[in-house]
Amino acid sequence: MPRLRQRLSSPRRVESFSDAVFAISATLLVLDLGIPRDHYLTRILADWPGFVAYLAAFLTIASIWLHHHTLFSRIHRIDAGLVVTNLGLLLGVAVLPWPTALLAASLRDGDRDDQVVAVAVYGIVSLVVAGSWAALSGTLSRRPGLLQSAADQFWMRANFRTVLWTTLPVVAAVPLAIVAPVGSLGLYVAVPIFFLVLSSRPTEPDTDISHSG
Amino acid sequence: MPRLRQRLSSPRRVESFSDAVFAISATLLVLDLGIPRDHYLTRILADWPGFVAYLAAFLTIASIWLHHHTLFSRIHRIDAGLVVTNLGLLLGVAVLPWPTALLAASLRDGDRDDQVVAVAVYGIVSLVVAGSWAALSGTLSRRPGLLQSAADQFWMRANFRTVLWTTLPVVAAVPLAIVAPVGSLGLYVAVPIFFLVLSSRPTEPDTDISHSG
Amino acid sequence: MPRLRQRLSSPRRVESFSDAVFAISATLLVLDLGIPRDHYLTRILADWPGFVAYLAAFLTIASIWLHHHTLFSRIHRIDAGLVVTNLGLLLGVAVLPWPTALLAASLRDGDRDDQVVAVAVYGIVSLVVAGSWAALSGTLSRRPGLLQSAADQFWMRANFRTVLWTTLPVVAAVPLAIVAPVGSLGLYVAVPIFFLVLSSRPTEPDTDISHSG
Amino acid sequence: MPRLRQRLSSPRRVESFSDAVFAISATLLVLDLGIPRDHYLTRILADWPGFVAYLAAFLTIASIWLHHHTLFSRIHRIDAGLVVTNLGLLLGVAVLPWPTALLAASLRDGDRDDQVVAVAVYGIVSLVVAGSWAALSGTLSRRPGLLQSAADQFWMRANFRTVLWTTLPVVAAVPLAIVAPVGSLGLYVAVPIFFLVLSSRPTEPDTDISHSG
Repeated sequence: MPRLRQRLSSPRRVESFSDAVFAISATLLVLDLGIPRDHYLTRILADWPGFVAYLAAFLTIASIWLHHHTLFSRIHRIDAGLVVTNLGLLLGVAVLPWPTALLAASLRDGDRDDQVVAVAVYGIVSLVVAGSWAALSGTLSRRPGLLQSAADQFWMRANFRTVLWTTLPVVAAVPLAIVAPVGSLGLYVAVPIFFLVLSSRPTEPDTDISHSG
Repeated sequence: MPRLRQRLSSPRRVESFSDAVFAISATLLVLDLGIPRDHYLTRILADWPGFVAYLAAFLTIASIWLHHHTLFSRIHRIDAGLVVTNLGLLLGVAVLPWPTALLAASLRDGDRDDQVVAVAVYGIVSLVVAGSWAALSGTLSRRPGLLQSAADQFWMRANFRTVLWTTLPVVAAVPLAIVAPVGSLGLYVAVPIFFLVLSSRPTEPDTDISHSG
Repeated sequence: MPRLRQRLSSPRRVESFSDAVFAISATLLVLDLGIPRDHYLTRILADWPGFVAYLAAFLTIASIWLHHHTLFSRIHRIDAGLVVTNLGLLLGVAVLPWPTALLAASLRDGDRDDQVVAVAVYGIVSLVVAGSWAALSGTLSRRPGLLQSAADQFWMRANFRTVLWTTLPVVAAVPLAIVAPVGSLGLYVAVPIFFLVLSSRPTEPDTDISHSG
Repeated sequence: MPRLRQRLSSPRRVESFSDAVFAISATLLVLDLGIPRDHYLTRILADWPGFVAYLAAFLTIASIWLHHHTLFSRIHRIDAGLVVTNLGLLLGVAVLPWPTALLAASLRDGDRDDQVVAVAVYGIVSLVVAGSWAALSGTLSRRPGLLQSAADQFWMRANFRTVLWTTLPVVAAVPLAIVAPVGSLGLYVAVPIFFLVLSSRPTEPDTDISHSG
């Protein structure tokens, strides 16, 4: 068995497997959007929480993918511990369509108690994702041998602190669910949007000036 | 956070993630085709709008993939803004099975009002796709540093004009839905077929003559 | 628009997109296998046609993937016509879970007429796949400039004849459905098994002797 | 037909196709987790076997992927026999969501007989996976020409013995299902967890010391 723990050197296949899980999970979410039987306009408008939950989950997976992409571009080689931690992250992402469907159903049909349960379940899955993410980021910040350069080590430490800060609103959203489920859902939409808008600002010219036309 | 906006240089992983989303969305569409309980022949023939909607959505995704393939083959490096714009395109593609199912259901069971709503919803999603596409294409035409050569800049500008023209029938199909939902659906089938037929004409000999056998 | 028909040179992205569609379609088939409510053993055994249909569809996609893999390993560059023909093949593969589900449902619950319709529909989709395949193979046998070597051109011509012969049992299975639906289903299982068994015989030593240990 | 059995040299496309099947199957499992109609907390807690079955199946696929990754990193070239054996493994993985759903349903709603049938079916699919795996591993241990170095041959032989040992608890879990279905399910969770924990121990420094920072 120990013999299996070797040669996991290149991150290429871990990236492509992770990308596939991210893409499938983000696309399977669409199966949670129901087809009304009649009075389409009224029913579609009334089902707005389902669309908000869909958007929250899609944007969450999109921002995880973006962050994963950035993180792995700095990895030189990968070891088995990182691969297994990454599988924990993938478990959280793969299961995400379920709390999303639960959340949408509770905001459409459930009573207050059901809504609190649904947002809390969504929050727990988000915490699994955030926890795996923190573990991945923390391991990399302590293992310079896995990175491409010394600058990457500095980056990883700064990134680890950012990850810990980003976990705060995810944790805060769980108790908020008891007071205001819709407000908690709003937080789950706001976090990835905030992240994606920040990430989409133009790259500083000094990071790659070799092809500035 | 700003530290995350770096090193998104190679478009490889963006391509493979996009390909996965395109492939999954195009394949998930099949779940919208129902299984009749009895009188198979009659019911399958009566469900023709479902098959036309399936074909429209599949061909739309296929032509987006083809165009995406062509566009990205001219990109030298990618920045975070492009990646986030691309995520907007993927959101539109990933959600497409839902308006497709809605459209098929409305043409089979819905009244006139439902059909208008369904085609309009399909049109809105198509506009999200077309809008992200125009943003992607427009950004590239203004950022020569991201392209492989000066010829690509010329190509991107011409391509951006083409993209703006192609958006016209997509916009026109939305009000057409109020007068003639089936005609609007026909337009959604015709646009990608027109595009694919044009694209399948033989490549000019001057583009690659190194291996003419 | 003509400007879009360029630079589709490397088959890499066509391969990865096709692989994703093959993999998703083959995996989505599992959704057609139902969960009984009670008397599991009796009901699972009674549902044997569903499992046979599942196997037929999975093996069909597996043998198409294997053949696609072999064919594309001989392609040097690809043009837009090939890409669009390949999209036709992917359409057939992506839709395959639907006739599979139809076939399984008809053999479980339908009357004789429904079974004939279901096997015929399965046959029509198989013909779309076989037709796209013949078009892909035929184009390549006439376009030596797209291949890697002169030996590949010889191979492609022989392969094209094989493809035309393999289409025969697929065509024969459609009228056979009227006389014996289960026999027709048997043919759909037999063709890919025959192909896979033949393909799994050891490679001749002369094809690659550089690493014979 | 014999002409098709050539040039399957690089394992790249086999890896990416397998990764896609693993990723889709692992992600489709989420569709087995149901949405309750009311009393969310009670019903979700009562459905614990469904979550355990989900976890067993996800961890099984994750550990197969990890093992596949390790095995293929030692392969230099691949032949058609290996590709077809790999397709057998993929068939087992692709069908896994069905026995998982069956198992979850039987532990929630079925009587004792149904539970025995469900765990036995899960075991049979696990045996198909384990058998393909043993065939893949055994072939590689006897074909040094397919591997990268002489050290890999030694590794493959040791690995083949490990695979045969790992098959034991999978076989044992089938008769155990008759006495204790839940215990059998526990074994299906324990095997991949045991494997993943072992695999995540740090790599020995001697396997790659070129970048120890």
